[in-house]
Amino acid sequence: MSRIYDRVALIGLGLIAGSMAHAMRRADLAGEIVGTARSENTRRIAREIGLCDRVTETAAEAVEGADLVVLCVPIGAMDPVAREIAPHLKPGATVTDVGSVKRAVIDAVAPHLPDTVHFIPAHPLAGTEHSGPRSGFAELFDNRFTVLSPDETTDPDALARLRALWEGMGANVEEMEPDRHDLVLAVTSHAPHLIAYTMVGVADDLRRVTDSEVIRYSAAGFRDFTRIAASDPTMWRDVFLNNKDATLEILGRFTEELFALQRAIRTGDGDHLHDYFTRTRAIRRGIIEAGQDTDAPDFGRGAPKP
Amino acid sequence: MSRIYDRVALIGLGLIAGSMAHAMRRADLAGEIVGTARSENTRRIAREIGLCDRVTETAAEAVEGADLVVLCVPIGAMDPVAREIAPHLKPGATVTDVGSVKRAVIDAVAPHLPDTVHFIPAHPLAGTEHSGPRSGFAELFDNRFTVLSPDETTDPDALARLRALWEGMGANVEEMEPDRHDLVLAVTSHAPHLIAYTMVGVADDLRRVTDSEVIRYSAAGFRDFTRIAASDPTMWRDVFLNNKDATLEILGRFTEELFALQRAIRTGDGDHLHDYFTRTRAIRRGIIEAGQDTDAPDFGRGAPKP
Repeated sequence: MSRIYDRVALIGLGLIAGSMAHAMRRADLAGEIVGTARSENTRRIAREIGLCDRVTETAAEAVEGADLVVLCVPIGAMDPVAREIAPHLKPGATVTDVGSVKRAVIDAVAPHLPDTVHFIPAHPLAGTEHSGPRSGFAELFDNRFTVLSPDETTDPDALARLRALWEGMGANVEEMEPDRHDLVLAVTSHAPHLIAYTMVGVADDLRRVTDSEVIRYSAAGFRDFTRIAASDPTMWRDVFLNNKDATLEILGRFTEELFALQRAIRTGDGDHLHDYFTRTRAIRRGIIEAGQDTDAPDFGRGAPKP
Repeated sequence: MSRIYDRVALIGLGLIAGSMAHAMRRADLAGEIVGTARSENTRRIAREIGLCDRVTETAAEAVEGADLVVLCVPIGAMDPVAREIAPHLKPGATVTDVGSVKRAVIDAVAPHLPDTVHFIPAHPLAGTEHSGPRSGFAELFDNRFTVLSPDETTDPDALARLRALWEGMGANVEEMEPDRHDLVLAVTSHAPHLIAYTMVGVADDLRRVTDSEVIRYSAAGFRDFTRIAASDPTMWRDVFLNNKDATLEILGRFTEELFALQRAIRTGDGDHLHDYFTRTRAIRRGIIEAGQDTDAPDFGRGAPKP
């Protein structure tokens, strides 16, 4: 893979930015990788582990001379960061992001950018429950989807280069309109995360009643929810606040279905339950066939060591 | 490990019974393993793969001369199976089960058994999303908890032997009163399963709207729910119908919390969301420290192959 950008600036150095740094190096996609983070501790760790070629104190410094600027901050920080970097962007540079919501990021970022740069919103649909500068790894995007949300004014060459970068990092690249992205993600990500957080919160309350039993007996299903609910709190607060309508719409449908199933339990309607539980098996087969999950029992987790 | 029972009869040959057969053989815990299943196809497969030493056509035949009889059928089938086997049980034998609900199994089974046998309800808290006679494996119970629910009339020697069997199969054995078991499991297993089934059902409805997008972009959280929602429909129908009160109680609390979080999203109360999401991280640390889950990112699933 040949170099696609001479200098890439990563603003924010968490799981996604760190994984991008590793993935860009794996395929030699960038001449220089510059990074910055608001937290002094994050910058220190990034320097210590050599995450980037250079770590700057501010976002304004990081973007100087960069051909590609990637905003890897929580959605709530997109507006101030865009304001800060705008005067320092190199003409002809591409600005992109990795936010889990697209419409709100466009609204927060686009108005501040000069006409001399290309803004192409993006979202890699990949992650783990870990966060911070040490959590990244080069394989995170392999065979996962990255969504780009260009519009009719997007420069085709700038778009082709950004697509090539993501493909070079292992991703399958798709284009999607921002509002559709936000609805699909509300289903596949935002609502499931809120539900997992809720269930873990309920269990945490009950833990006081049941002592350590909730933890000891978590293998029966609950522990899967705790993995999702261990995700970064700031990132997820901002996702919900910025994809409010779609998330609430899906949660409304969820509650409706949940009430119907609760009523089936209460009235002893076994057929309704059985039909519902049979239908949901098919969707998992689709996901496995699409190469988006393993068919190994229990995700291939082995038995825990005593 | 020395032999604990001369002959063990497994009634029902799904994931748990199959794993018991493998685990008993691994440690040579049983002289002979006899099995049976209602479905002819299951019996045929069990014979084909040599799952048991002997496969009988009926439960009545299977229990003849057995020192231990393990009921591994869905909870709704416990009552008819108990009636069928009762006249054929060897005096002094132990009858146990592996059902996910304890009170309902006791009510369904105990009245039919003769005074000459020992009935000790049990529940191994282990499983995968796979089912059927081919899905079992010897390591399923390693370092997982198995709950026994004896009462004050239980014979201490019979209890000690059953405990030794489970320990010999790798499990940590705990005793718990049936109603408490049913409440704890409603939190750690039954409510999470119903919630996962519900979310997958909602996504399945939306799949018609969003074409294959729900499947392609499932890696963002949703696919974890689909694993749980791929569990055996008959088994889970019976769990919900037979642990009705505790499950509905936990779902009531869940809905209450979910509404509070939805209101926080609607009103933009970021502090409430952030506090909630921070609190839920701690419980996962507890689960990992208790050896009940892996700390590997994303359960250690690698990237899917293209």
